[in-house]
Order: sequence, then C-alpha cells, then structure tokens
Amino acid sequence: MTETLTAARVDELVDALAHPTEDDTAAMDAWWRANNYLTVGQIYLKDNALLRRELLADDIKPRLLGHWGTSPGLSFIYTHASRLIRLTEQSMIYITGPGHGGPALVAASYLEDSYTEVYPRITEDADGVLRLFRQFSAPGGIPSHVSVTTPGSINEGGELGYALVHAFGSVMDNPDLIALAVVGDGEAETGPLEGSWKSISFINPARDGAVLPILHLNGAKIASPTVQARKDPEELRKLYEGHGYEVIEVGGDDPAVVGPQLDAALAYAWGRIKKIQIEARGEGVVTAERPHWPMIILRTPKGWTGPHEVDGTVVEGTWRAHQVPLSGVKENPEHLAILERWLRSYRPEELFDENGSLTELARRANPSGDLRMSANPVANGGGSYTPLDMPDWRDLALDLAPEDRGRVKKESTRYLGALMAELYRRNPTTFRLFCPDEADSNRLSAVFEQTDRAFMERLTDLDVNISPAGRVMEVLSEHNTHGWLEAYNLTGRHGLWASYEAFGMVSVSQTIQHAKWLEEGVHLDWRVPVPSLNILLSSTCWRNDHNGFSHQGPGVLSSILNMRAEIVRAYLPPDANCLLEIASYGFDTTDKVNLIVQDKQPQFQWLTKDEAYEHCKRGYGVWDWAGNEDLASGEEPDIVIACAGDVVTTEAIAAAQILRQQLPLLKVRVVNVVRLQTLARPKDHPSGMSDEDFAETFTNDKDVLFCFHGYPGSIHQLVHGRPDADRFHVRGFIEEGTTTTPFDMVVRNRVDRYHLVIDALNNAKKTVRGAADLKRWCEKQLARHEDYKVAHLEDMPEIRDWHFEV
Amino acid sequence: MTETLTAARVDELVDALAHPTEDDTAAMDAWWRANNYLTVGQIYLKDNALLRRELLADDIKPRLLGHWGTSPGLSFIYTHASRLIRLTEQSMIYITGPGHGGPALVAASYLEDSYTEVYPRITEDADGVLRLFRQFSAPGGIPSHVSVTTPGSINEGGELGYALVHAFGSVMDNPDLIALAVVGDGEAETGPLEGSWKSISFINPARDGAVLPILHLNGAKIASPTVQARKDPEELRKLYEGHGYEVIEVGGDDPAVVGPQLDAALAYAWGRIKKIQIEARGEGVVTAERPHWPMIILRTPKGWTGPHEVDGTVVEGTWRAHQVPLSGVKENPEHLAILERWLRSYRPEELFDENGSLTELARRANPSGDLRMSANPVANGGGSYTPLDMPDWRDLALDLAPEDRGRVKKESTRYLGALMAELYRRNPTTFRLFCPDEADSNRLSAVFEQTDRAFMERLTDLDVNISPAGRVMEVLSEHNTHGWLEAYNLTGRHGLWASYEAFGMVSVSQTIQHAKWLEEGVHLDWRVPVPSLNILLSSTCWRNDHNGFSHQGPGVLSSILNMRAEIVRAYLPPDANCLLEIASYGFDTTDKVNLIVQDKQPQFQWLTKDEAYEHCKRGYGVWDWAGNEDLASGEEPDIVIACAGDVVTTEAIAAAQILRQQLPLLKVRVVNVVRLQTLARPKDHPSGMSDEDFAETFTNDKDVLFCFHGYPGSIHQLVHGRPDADRFHVRGFIEEGTTTTPFDMVVRNRVDRYHLVIDALNNAKKTVRGAADLKRWCEKQLARHEDYKVAHLEDMPEIRDWHFEV
Repeated sequence: MTETLTAARVDELVDALAHPTEDDTAAMDAWWRANNYLTVGQIYLKDNALLRRELLADDIKPRLLGHWGTSPGLSFIYTHASRLIRLTEQSMIYITGPGHGGPALVAASYLEDSYTEVYPRITEDADGVLRLFRQFSAPGGIPSHVSVTTPGSINEGGELGYALVHAFGSVMDNPDLIALAVVGDGEAETGPLEGSWKSISFINPARDGAVLPILHLNGAKIASPTVQARKDPEELRKLYEGHGYEVIEVGGDDPAVVGPQLDAALAYAWGRIKKIQIEARGEGVVTAERPHWPMIILRTPKGWTGPHEVDGTVVEGTWRAHQVPLSGVKENPEHLAILERWLRSYRPEELFDENGSLTELARRANPSGDLRMSANPVANGGGSYTPLDMPDWRDLALDLAPEDRGRVKKESTRYLGALMAELYRRNPTTFRLFCPDEADSNRLSAVFEQTDRAFMERLTDLDVNISPAGRVMEVLSEHNTHGWLEAYNLTGRHGLWASYEAFGMVSVSQTIQHAKWLEEGVHLDWRVPVPSLNILLSSTCWRNDHNGFSHQGPGVLSSILNMRAEIVRAYLPPDANCLLEIASYGFDTTDKVNLIVQDKQPQFQWLTKDEAYEHCKRGYGVWDWAGNEDLASGEEPDIVIACAGDVVTTEAIAAAQILRQQLPLLKVRVVNVVRLQTLARPKDHPSGMSDEDFAETFTNDKDVLFCFHGYPGSIHQLVHGRPDADRFHVRGFIEEGTTTTPFDMVVRNRVDRYHLVIDALNNAKKTVRGAADLKRWCEKQLARHEDYKVAHLEDMPEIRDWHFEV
Repeated sequence: MTETLTAARVDELVDALAHPTEDDTAAMDAWWRANNYLTVGQIYLKDNALLRRELLADDIKPRLLGHWGTSPGLSFIYTHASRLIRLTEQSMIYITGPGHGGPALVAASYLEDSYTEVYPRITEDADGVLRLFRQFSAPGGIPSHVSVTTPGSINEGGELGYALVHAFGSVMDNPDLIALAVVGDGEAETGPLEGSWKSISFINPARDGAVLPILHLNGAKIASPTVQARKDPEELRKLYEGHGYEVIEVGGDDPAVVGPQLDAALAYAWGRIKKIQIEARGEGVVTAERPHWPMIILRTPKGWTGPHEVDGTVVEGTWRAHQVPLSGVKENPEHLAILERWLRSYRPEELFDENGSLTELARRANPSGDLRMSANPVANGGGSYTPLDMPDWRDLALDLAPEDRGRVKKESTRYLGALMAELYRRNPTTFRLFCPDEADSNRLSAVFEQTDRAFMERLTDLDVNISPAGRVMEVLSEHNTHGWLEAYNLTGRHGLWASYEAFGMVSVSQTIQHAKWLEEGVHLDWRVPVPSLNILLSSTCWRNDHNGFSHQGPGVLSSILNMRAEIVRAYLPPDANCLLEIASYGFDTTDKVNLIVQDKQPQFQWLTKDEAYEHCKRGYGVWDWAGNEDLASGEEPDIVIACAGDVVTTEAIAAAQILRQQLPLLKVRVVNVVRLQTLARPKDHPSGMSDEDFAETFTNDKDVLFCFHGYPGSIHQLVHGRPDADRFHVRGFIEEGTTTTPFDMVVRNRVDRYHLVIDALNNAKKTVRGAADLKRWCEKQLARHEDYKVAHLEDMPEIRDWHFEV
C-alpha cells in the first residue's frame, strides 16, 4: 500500500484521522466498553456472563486471577489504532509490553472475530462469552498473560524488557509494516528496554518498516510508583528526544478528552512515518540521516474506569489497581455490589445482542480481514513458512583429503561466514546476521563481501563495512541483537545470532523465554512454523585464554539442555565441514533453538566433506582412524575416549595417539559426538540414540572417558539411565580459568592429553605392560608444564603443534 | 572530611581546582606519560623494559595481548582525578567500565606504590618494571582486564554493563565517598548500562555518597563506531539531561587543551556534588527533590598518543586502535621502529631514575596513603570485615509444637521479612534489601515497619512505604538491584537480593560474574573478606501457577551449581524455621554466593525451632516421623523418598503417608535435603557428606526416589560418583507449565503424591500385597484430576488440604 501513497494523500488521511466523526467516536467508545467488560468478566465471572440477571456470589470464580490495572489503557490504544487502520489500510501489529494485560488482548481478538476463528470452541454468543471467561487463568485454559496462545502476538509479556526489540525486529525488511509497541512504565525501568530505544539507529526507512512506540505511563508498577511516571515531565520529554524521537504527549483521565487527543497523536505520528518513508524511498535505499521517528507518551490512570475507591482507599490510578482491585467479592456483599455497578457501567446490553453476539455498534470499530491486528499474518510467522534459498555447503567447504586429517589448521567459523555471505546473496530480504559487535572477531567477516553493517548515524571516511544499506545487525548489546532476531524469526524470516560464548549468558533469559514460546507454539495448529532461532557461540571458554576468567563460561549450553527436548538442539562441531553441515541443517529447520558451540581460532580439521555429512547426519560416531581397536575382530576396546567440542576433541585424539603409539596392546576407541543430545535416551530426547546404537558405540560395560566442552554435569545429566552410567568419567570445564595459554587452559581443567592418558590408563579394564611408565611420562610432561610457567612467566610458548598420525 | 566543608570552602577549592599550577600540570603530564609508557610496555615488552638501549625484535613478547585503545583516556582521567583528591582530600574510588583497559589501571596502581605494597615481587625498580611487563596477560601472571587482582577495583570490566550500578551500590551509606565511574562508549550501548543511569532516583545526598559518571567517548568499539559517538552531540546532551544529570562536555585531541578543560569540569562537578550534599545534610535526612547530579562527557581519540597511522592506514581514533595497534612488531622492522618512537615519545628517561624507580616529577601527582584511588580501603571490602549485629532467629521464629507438624500453614518468607526488619533496626547503615519491585509480593513487607522504599522522585499523598529516607532498594530492574548489592557487598556492607525465581535468570550472568570475582578474590591475601551475596528466589516455578509458563523456570539453581564449590551454596529450606536458620547463617558468612530458593505462598510447617536448627546445621536428615521404618531394628528401608525444596517436600511426605497408611509392611524412609550440595562427594564440594553419612542416609543400594525443586539433571550431577548413583530416580521440574492450579503443576511434572507412590512401588525392592491395588487407586486419582480439569474448566478447586499425620 505504501508504494501508492503520495505525500498529498498522506496529508488528507492525517487530516481525516485527526478528526473522528461522531460515528467513529461512538464505535470506539462501544468497542472499548465491550473490551473492558470482557476483561473484567475474564477476571471475575464464571457465570451470568452477560449480566442478564443480578450478580450473585456464586457467579464469581473461586480464584481471582489476572491484571486489571494496565488493561483499559491497552484496549483504549487498541481501538484508536484500529480506527487508523480502517482509514488508512495500514498493516499494523500490536506489541503488548505490559503482557500481564492479557485479558484485554484476548478480548480484542474475540471482538475482532479472530479468536473464534482460531479457537472455534469460543463461539460468538453467550455460551462463547462464558467459555471465554471460564478458560481465563484456569487449569486447561489460557495463561493470564499475552502469550503465544494470543492471536496477533509475537511478544510474551511475562518477562519484561523486550517489547521494543521485538517490535524493531519485526519491521526489519517489512517495509509496509508498522509495529505499534506499548511500553508500560514498569517495563520502562528494565535495562533491556532502556537499551532498546536506540534501535532506530539501525532502521532504514527505505527498506524497513517503522515502530511506533507508545510509552504508556499509568503511574505505578506492582507495588509502587515508577521513576518515569514521577520524573519532571519536561525531563522525560528530553530523555526521549535525546534517544532521537519526536515526542508527542497525550494524557488525562477523561476518555472523552484523551480519545480525540490520541486520535490526533496517532494521525500525526502516522503521517510523519509515511513522510519519512516516502522521502527515503524516493531517494533510493541510501538514506544518509537517521530520522526523528515519532513516539507517543500516553498518561492514563492505572485501572482506568474501574472502582475509584474501595473501602475508603483510592484504588484507581495507584498500584492497588495492578491486579484484582476488588478481592473480597465472593464474601463481601459490598464488594460484590461495586463489581456489579462496575460491570454495568459498560452497558453490556448495548454491546451484546440477545444471542450474546457483539452488536454492530461496537463491531464497526473493527478493521477487516488481515488488517485486524489480531489477525495480521505478520504476527503469525508471516502467514506461511518460506524456506531459505540454501547453497550446497559442499561448494563452500574445506576440500580436505583424508591424509590431511589433523595436519591442516583452519579457522572453522570463516567457512560459516562464507556460507552466510552466500545466504545474503541468495536471500536479499529474508536473512540477517545479528551479533553484538563480534562478527569480525568471530571470523564471520566474509558476510561483508555481500553487505555492510547497518547504521543510520553519522559515518566518516575512515569507516568500513558500515552503511545505512547494510544488513548485518551489530550493536554492543546482546539483548538488542538477540531480541531483534527473535522477532525476525517470529515474523517468518531467517537469521543467526553470534556471540562470545560467555556473554551468551547475558541474554540467556531471552533464549529460554523464546524456547518456552516455541514449546507452546508448536502445539497450536493455527500457528505456522517459524524459522528456528540459530545461535553460534564462538570465542569459547577454552580459547579465551587471552581475555581471562570473565570470558570463560560455557553456561548457556547447560542452561538450554534443561529446556524441552522437542525444541532445543545442542551442536558441537569439531571442524569446519561439520560446522557447515550443522549450520545448513539448522537454517533449514523450524521451531527449534539450535545452539552451535565452536571456537574461531585456527583448529585442526578432521573430516572430509562426505565424512562430515555422514557424521553430522548421524550425530555421533566412532572415529576408527583415531583409535586402534581391531574392528574386524569384533572384540570390544579396553577403553572408550569420547569427545564433544572442538578443543577437547583435539586433546582426546592426541591422548589416543599417545596410547596407541606407546601401548599398542591397549585397545582404544575414539567416539566423537556432534549432536549432543544423541547421548540421551530416545524417551528423553527425539535425537537420542537407540539402546543398540548406544551399546554399539560406547559398549555396555567399558569405561568411557568423556571429554566435554562444557560443565561435566551436562553429560551426567544426558547419559542418566543408560546402562551403567557411572562408567562415564567426564572431563570438562571445571571453572578453572585465567589469562593464560590455550594449552594451560586444558591442563587447568584436566582435559589435556596427558591427564587424559593417565585417566584412560586408570580406568581401562586391561593391564598393559608399560602403562606405569607411560603414566610417569605424562606426569613429567605436566610437571614440566608447571615449572615452565613459573620459570618463564614472560615467554611461555604455545605447545608446539602436534603431529597427528591419523 | 565532608562534615567540616562549608560552601565557602568548597568555592575556594573549586577555584583552585579549576586553575592548575604549572607544577601540577607538569606532574600530571609526567604521570600520564609514565602510565602510557607502562601500558605500552605491558602489551609489548619482555625485555629492555626502560629502553636503556635500542629496541630489538627479541625484546618483544611472543604473543601480543591487551587493549591499548581505551587505556590512555583512562589514565588521563585518573591523574586529573588524583589532583582533585590531592587538593580536596576527597575519598574517591575509580570504576573502570572499559575494563579491558587493564594495563592502564595496573600501571596506575604501580605508580601509586600500592601495587608493590600488595605484590612485593613487583618492586619499584628496573627489575620490577620488567616483572610488571612480563606478568601481564601471561600464564601464571595477571589478566588483561581490570579485575579482582587490580588494587582499587570493585568492577571486572570483562562483561560490560555494570560500571554504573557498581558505582552507585558503593556510595549507598558511604556519605563521604565519590565513585568516579568511567563508562566507555561500547558499554554505553548495553541494556544494563543504559538502564542504570536512573540510579540517581534512589540516591539520597543526605546519607549516601555520590557517583560522578564520565561517559568516555572515544568513538569506536571493537570493530565499528558507536551510536553515542556518532549521534548529534546536542541530542546526546539532551539524553543525559533527560536522565536527570547536569551535563559537562569536554573533548579534543590536544592534551594541553583537554587537560585544563577536564580540570575545570572536575572542579565544577565536585563543587556541585559538595553543594548538593551540604544543602541536603543541612536539612536533615529528608531531601524532597532529586538533585541534578553532574556528569561529564569526555571525547578523546581511541588510542590517544599512539601511532596515528600504520602502513598508510589511520589507526588513532578508530576501532583499529582497540587492541594492539601494531601487530607485526616482531617481524616487521618498520613496525618495530614505530613502536620504539612511540615508547620514546613518553621520554622514559625523565620518568624513571637510574634504578628504574619513578622520579619525583611524576610521583608528585600521587595522592597519599588511603587517598590513592588504588589504595582506598572502600574498594577492598571497606578495609576490614564487620559482621552484622544479628538477632537470634529463634526469637522471631514460628513456635511450632511437634504435634502441629503438617497441620499449620504459613507464608514462610514473612518470617524472613521479620528477620530483616530486625536487621534494619540493629544495623541502620550497613544492611539493605534489594529487590525488583517484589518485596511485598514476596511477603517481605515486615521490613516496611522499619524503613521505606528509597525514592527521590516526586511523591503523592497516596504513596505508602516510600520516601527519600527509605532504605529498601526497589526498581523494576534485576540488573540494577543485583548490581547495587554486589557493590554494597564488595565495599563491606550486607544485604539480600530477592527476586521471582524465573526472573533471576535475567541477571544470572551478574550472579555468575560475581561468583567468579569471589572465586579469584579468596585467593588474594590482601583482599579482606566481604559479606556474601545473599539471594532469595521466591515466587517459584511451582507456585507461579497463576502467572503461567514464562514465570516458571528454576534455571538459576542449575546455573550456579556449575560454579566453583568453594564459593556457591544452594539452600532449599522446607519451612519457615529452616529459612530463618539458613538465612541467618548466610548473613554471617563471607565470600559466598548463598542461593536460597523458597516459595512465598502458605505452606505446611514441619520443624520446631530446635529441629530446624539441627537439620540445617547438618544440611540433610532422615525425617523419621514421615517414614515408617523400624529404626530400632537396624534394618534398612525398602525405598528412600528424598526431597529438596518446599513444594516437593510436601508431596514426598504425602506420598510416604499414603504408603505407610496403606502398605505398612513396606518400609519407607523420608530424607530431606536443605543444603543441596551435601549430596556431592566431599572431594567435589566442602559441604559434601562423607561416604559413611551418605550410606547411612541413602543406604548403599536401595532405590532413592528423589523429589527435587529444580531441573532433575542437577541431582544427577550432584550424586555422580556416589555408590550406584543410577539408583537415584529424580523427579523435578521437567519444563511442564502453564496457568493452572498448584496441584496441577506437580501433576504435570510427575512429582505429585500419586505419581510418587506409583514410582516408589515400582522401584521398591520388596513386593508387598496390596501394592497393585494402591497403584490402581493412585492412577484413578490422577485420572480424576484430568477429568476434573476438562469438565470443570472454570471451577477446579485447589486440592483440599491434606491431613498430615506425622
């Protein structure tokens, strides 16, 4: 639609928008009353839904749940935005920052028919209204928050802080979309939200849509006033002007006054957005200057239109209206009477006809079809799932000959960079890389051959790979970049988030909340599949030897392993070709959280393209070239050395090499695991290997020395329930770090080749002559390592490259 | 000192500060040159430390690590702040947001003698300088970042975002302190940092010290320009005025111009701070209006005074100066020559005498004694550890008679509230509660009998429990509140951070980074012990039945169990008296992270005061009143039902009751674990119970049905290595949640009494007549539960209170 809009037409529409007709006003008023009625009904009523008789204590739910305070403001904004849509045919979605205002958004969807469309059980009649009320916050019903079950939503409002980043992510490469994002004054206090206003520095009006933020100040959060509601309003305006916005202020407690003000504000804001876009698009894709996008500060009372006073205490406008303003309704007749008066104040008899269906009076306020905010396909994965145009990764892979195994060192993530460059080329508007300022550091720079970093602030001649037309999303904020990608995914587009491994913990709560969203979403038949959230954690604990202890933490891996098995996947590619196969696979999946952990530093390469393909498809495998068992004999090895993770795989192979060269009679098997959850039992994870495969791989009773990238507990957790799981001796990151050399890192955590040889010999079932000598030799190597550290503080070389014979 | 300052004296000092003498200027210049010299030396040199001969390739370290870019700016600020201290005797600490500028802060400490005081090996002579250089970023040496090993630091700059919250936490109840906090323009982009400017809304000038933020814009982060450096400067000024600050701007690239400007800015800022404080303190503790505290925006080039161009490319002032601006020094003679010129540009011969000791020229720039920022005792736990004045918790406890076990329901956290109220009373300036707006919700409201919430913004007549004099720290930001407490702890004061359990994940990265700080800190003999970081996670997954899935996540517990055993402690008190004992113990410890997980809802009470004391001291125990084994017989039970966590403990006891009532021949033992890590082997955790105790508690071979509060993997991780660990069948939170009833939550996760009875019977070693019938009965109860959900969506009652017979 935007394409055909001229500046003159925008002016006309703005004028119309700013001057609602009486009809419009009446329709909006009715719709708002209907929404408020349904909201209060969801919180309180289990019977007498349309108040066709006197309200009785028995009509009240046994347990009163839900949040009234923010709800009337949310629905007030909703109906005025809907009017804008009706007049302009603007494609718009509604992001509900105060997600606990769930009943208002559920009611909005119900009033727009979309609720019944996706949940036919909730019919548009008196029975349906009752079911709507009964299901709210009830066992087997729906959550109290705006969530994945709410049509039109891409933002779970339970954990506050992400309303704006979700809005901004949704409009990237969606040029015709406006995401209206309501930020509550509670959420406005969170760090992630405060850090997300600057997203406009990355939005290009020529090719992206726009976000219209509404800071909705109702004065209080759960138990006290908020900073922004109590700041000097002049200072607050400055704050948002300082963030780069044109601030429009609206406020009051009389709906008849605030309504027209809000119409005018929305009209002005919409006009500004359109003008900015028309101008930018006229000029082509490069817009030199970041526009001053409009935003609205809306001040209305918390619990607006609800009981003003209860038991002599003011409720409306205070934190007391946050949840259930009248809590004693079932027992206290006076409260019951207040509730009835409150409900009747919305005049339900005007809003619902004899059947209990919405009357035309309120219905007129609805936009139609896909323009309804609760039915906009954008908020449902873009309407349908479109896969990426993917290259065959083999065309970009490392052409490794088997005889070069363990002789070639490469920065594996550079190959992923090349793959993503190709993705950018083939998918110019549906793929982006998101990264907190580490794309180069993580060796993904190949993407800059296809595009730049996005940036709408001033550039200088010295800047490289950065421009308004760029589509690599970098800002030093895990919260921003992670949140943008979540929304980019939930609106149907593809991407990857790359971070330093340790700092993945900064936004791990977002990773978890997104997993929860998908965990619920896959069970809703009306939600289309969405591209998976792909995460690369690089600059890992083992190779942050130079940055020190704060940069050494594999916590994300253990955190996501606790999430539901149907959603999360953890991958630990050992080399470049495996990384390409794993990443390609991940880009092709839906509704998953794919976590890839791999370092960026030069590392030995192990598998040919075909081998990598086979290995990753299976997810694990015996690397016979690394061990020395006699496979033909059918005899089991004396010890299994397993590994998952790039750095520890190298140590495992080195240990196996020492053993097979020094003690050939000891039969060693090396197993590499790339899809971590294949270790789990099939009943615990769909990737889990069968009992037979497990026994064939790890034997039934031989000891397994497991070298793991992360905290050892994760492996104990995964192999729990496997035959004799106690035989798994796990070595991993045991929180021993500092600024040191890479080799010292593995030594400190006892997962280096020498410790592994000693451990293997201690746990092998067979006694072999020479074992004691070999252990002593290993201990000597370790002692020399320690001596060297003390004696040559300044000059400790890396351990020399190992000559692998494989 | 502040007490004796008059406004007139402040004016005099401001005037003097703003007009540095030639001597001052020369001293600062020399000190800055010395610092820059030592910074470059730490990055590059392993020999020829004082450049007493020509620089050779062999003098260069084999591996070049460290960050030059931010360092000269950091030391520039440092020396000008030191001058302020010398003239005013102001107590000041230096918070280094750009913590990767480690060499500059290490050099500052060395120049101030404090480095040698705490690390005598690093002497003040040529040998010492060489050792200083060699240890930097070397194995066995020191980290590249400002960290716990850096004298004067309370902020690890590795994970960005917390400079300001640490600064603000340090000045609370430290009225004479100014925390100078440098925020880099990379860090300024993070959400947690952007969210922390509003900390001034909680700082009362009458009783708190002040933070002087310096936003240090050097234009770029690791690989690209930053938003704030490239915004319109006018807009940026508005942003910080909007945050409530009085903005002072200083900038340029000529030190001779910037220096006096910075002196004037510091003078003005210090004067404003003192005036604000004098005024507030004159009026007594209640200050009605939040002051416009000063802040400085300082613009200097990244890599200032370093090589301007290398190989024809501009380095100074760009992201290329971020780490090592000259990387090819060892191989490239031209680069080596640039490095030598660069080093000599600081005229080391003027700065270090024949012995290699700092000359008087630069030394004059140092403040003396405790006034040196690197030696201020505030930054070392306040100088010495002062325990809290603690009440005996028994005086505040629940007076439970043994016969009332399981018959009384109480909100256990209310008792903790009462304990904290008493702590506030006894420790008026050394204890605070920090909480993201949930003190009331978490039932800690008793604290408001002693104090209010702190708030410096406008108040109204309707507000309660909130005032400028308040000392409960609430704002809707996990990052703010967690970070404030960390710094309050690191400067020697006590507190507790309370959060909803699920949203503890929002700031879990802070929890982990603080644990890492303590993990390193306890090994430094010069660091005094600091109060432990005490955390209460309430509103837990099991009882967020009303808020739904986003509020149900016990991830913090599993995350911290991966941290080093000497630091982290996880506690799961089953009732009020245990909570009081555990919390009291935690308040009395040092250098720990004490995590307490307990819900706020009414819950059964189990232990008398004395029993709770004994149980918690030991950390675990057999609850003979809950089982039915014949203790006198010495025979082992047929099954052990263990539990850790309040809700699951109730289910475990209920299951045991069903079993002992219905199948008295089956011998059941109930074990409750309150100190979770007692489950670990003593070699894995200092709390771990001995092999004998473990066998005595859990037997050596009987199956253990373990009911756990969190994700089951944590128990597998903890009991790993115990005899026959596979016999532990863990039930816990398996990520099955929604809005429902509390009982449905345990059913969904299969840790309810009926599932437990079935599991116990399936795993018990003995066959007992009636077992099959009992299983069927349990299955029927579960089926009825499901039926009920479907049939009575609106009206499912809580499961009726259980009549416990104990």
